[in-house]
Amino acid sequence: MFVNPAEWHEICTKMFTTVGVPEEDAGLVADTALTADIRGVASHGSVRLPVYRERIQRGLINPTPSIRIVNDCPTLVHLDGDNGLAQVVDNKAAQIAAERANKYGVCCVATYNTNHMALLSHYGLKIAEQGLIAYIMCNTPPFVATMGAAEPVIGTNPICWCIPGKEFPIVLDMAISPARGKIKNAAAAGKPIPEGWALDKNGRPTTDAAAALEGMLLPIAGHKGYGIGVVVEVFSALLTGGKYGKNVTHPLDDYDHKPNCGNFIMALDPSKIMAEEDFVRRVDDYVQMVKSSKKSSPDADILFPGELEHRNELLVAERGLEISDETYQQYKSMVGQ
Amino acid sequence: MFVNPAEWHEICTKMFTTVGVPEEDAGLVADTALTADIRGVASHGSVRLPVYRERIQRGLINPTPSIRIVNDCPTLVHLDGDNGLAQVVDNKAAQIAAERANKYGVCCVATYNTNHMALLSHYGLKIAEQGLIAYIMCNTPPFVATMGAAEPVIGTNPICWCIPGKEFPIVLDMAISPARGKIKNAAAAGKPIPEGWALDKNGRPTTDAAAALEGMLLPIAGHKGYGIGVVVEVFSALLTGGKYGKNVTHPLDDYDHKPNCGNFIMALDPSKIMAEEDFVRRVDDYVQMVKSSKKSSPDADILFPGELEHRNELLVAERGLEISDETYQQYKSMVGQ
Repeated sequence: MFVNPAEWHEICTKMFTTVGVPEEDAGLVADTALTADIRGVASHGSVRLPVYRERIQRGLINPTPSIRIVNDCPTLVHLDGDNGLAQVVDNKAAQIAAERANKYGVCCVATYNTNHMALLSHYGLKIAEQGLIAYIMCNTPPFVATMGAAEPVIGTNPICWCIPGKEFPIVLDMAISPARGKIKNAAAAGKPIPEGWALDKNGRPTTDAAAALEGMLLPIAGHKGYGIGVVVEVFSALLTGGKYGKNVTHPLDDYDHKPNCGNFIMALDPSKIMAEEDFVRRVDDYVQMVKSSKKSSPDADILFPGELEHRNELLVAERGLEISDETYQQYKSMVGQ
Repeated sequence: MFVNPAEWHEICTKMFTTVGVPEEDAGLVADTALTADIRGVASHGSVRLPVYRERIQRGLINPTPSIRIVNDCPTLVHLDGDNGLAQVVDNKAAQIAAERANKYGVCCVATYNTNHMALLSHYGLKIAEQGLIAYIMCNTPPFVATMGAAEPVIGTNPICWCIPGKEFPIVLDMAISPARGKIKNAAAAGKPIPEGWALDKNGRPTTDAAAALEGMLLPIAGHKGYGIGVVVEVFSALLTGGKYGKNVTHPLDDYDHKPNCGNFIMALDPSKIMAEEDFVRRVDDYVQMVKSSKKSSPDADILFPGELEHRNELLVAERGLEISDETYQQYKSMVGQ
């Protein structure tokens, strides 16, 4: 079924006000989920909300955190999330980063005691909407091996940059490994996965999707993907005071621990170097330069990072948001409708 | 032959003082080349120096630039390199970034009107030696295609992070494509290159190294490598005022243009969040955690980013720097010795 995003936002918000989250904060959780749903990244969208809700109900997430600046330098800010929802803590972090970038040129906010961040580019887009460049990182539990290892040593560790553009913001929001979701889909369909994606539980290369799920992922581009994963671990966990490496517990699946996630958010103001319109003009000129390149076939499409997600936004604006009947009914009943 | 690095440094310095570069600046050029040579990245080391020297002699590089802060915010600094050697301009940029990071927590310096940066991690290591984290980017002429394109649309666009460590600094300094040097070596040896590395001049996939050299590279990890390349182009060129996209001319091979390279250097001070020794202890704990993981075979080596280069430094300290007899004689005669 197709729902009106505003209606879906209201239902998602109520899922949290009904478990003690203040109205405004509950709206932030819904915002984040809707951004992912509307941009076609459903795996990071409203599908996650029942878990967040259950974690609040089971005392694993603080619904009313006192988010606190611990150190203030003033362009490197250390933020204690008091175990609040990341959607609340990191929204605050992005706000601080943007305000300070406007003032000083650049600002980085390092958060800890936070939870599952979901779509990094949600926070980045909030920053880019203000004409600023965002750079965001977040570590995850270890799922990924590296050369010479026969067990996971690093997370899928997403890294994200968002840049203001003319027709659409440039957005790169990527994990340093193939997506586990794609492997799950292959396993469900009984299909193989490409070579180089995964090892089995004994650390041997495999193209068997089921064996890969029992085993571990491999980093993209070998030592380069692994290296980016290490960088993400440093910025988002070692630097922030968050849990790192093998001590990271799953912020969704593990109900025995509070995860103490750490995140890193930077905002940078290009208008401190050139007029905002000049920067956006240069970005647009570059986009057009790349997109008008010689094509490999007449119907080839040279995409820019973030362009597919922007097309999805346009599609949703036209026809509404596709939600399964089952999810729609489940969420409605959760909020007593 | 093996030379004493100090002797080699002196010869390299003289190569530039003899063409009008002030002694201190010439020393910086030698520093950068030596860092690359000593860390086993000879392709970015002293082998490049005759080209820099010739470019100075032909009026393409300004040997005595007036490097000038154009905008000062104070943590986003715009630096006009006055067409100086990047080894001089970006050393200044790294210095400013580190000083300001010490004061404010973080500082980014965007340079333009500069030249070939060579090894990004040289500048990053200078920052990491002071206990700071470095993040550096630099665009290049277009050598890399992307999905749907049949011509190069983006540079090999290196990106680099350096992080202080206990036994060695963590260093990731990577291009977003396979190394052209490896393809040149394969072509010279008449060997094929792996699938997915390159397209021929008509934009068709090829494993023929010679055809690849006439054609174009492919980004690592498909849209992810391409996306990182776009990010590097934005930070180092669109933001700085440097040349971007297809307008970039080769800073070594093109003797018809001054390249107006742009670079981006960030420094961040972890001691604003926790005591320096606590940060380094966390980094070291993480390094040990990863390195002590279960191995794929008893003699497997789980390396950390920057570890191989550190081992090369130790080797050079022991036995000296390997330089070909021909290069040694050539450089000596250039400086009249």
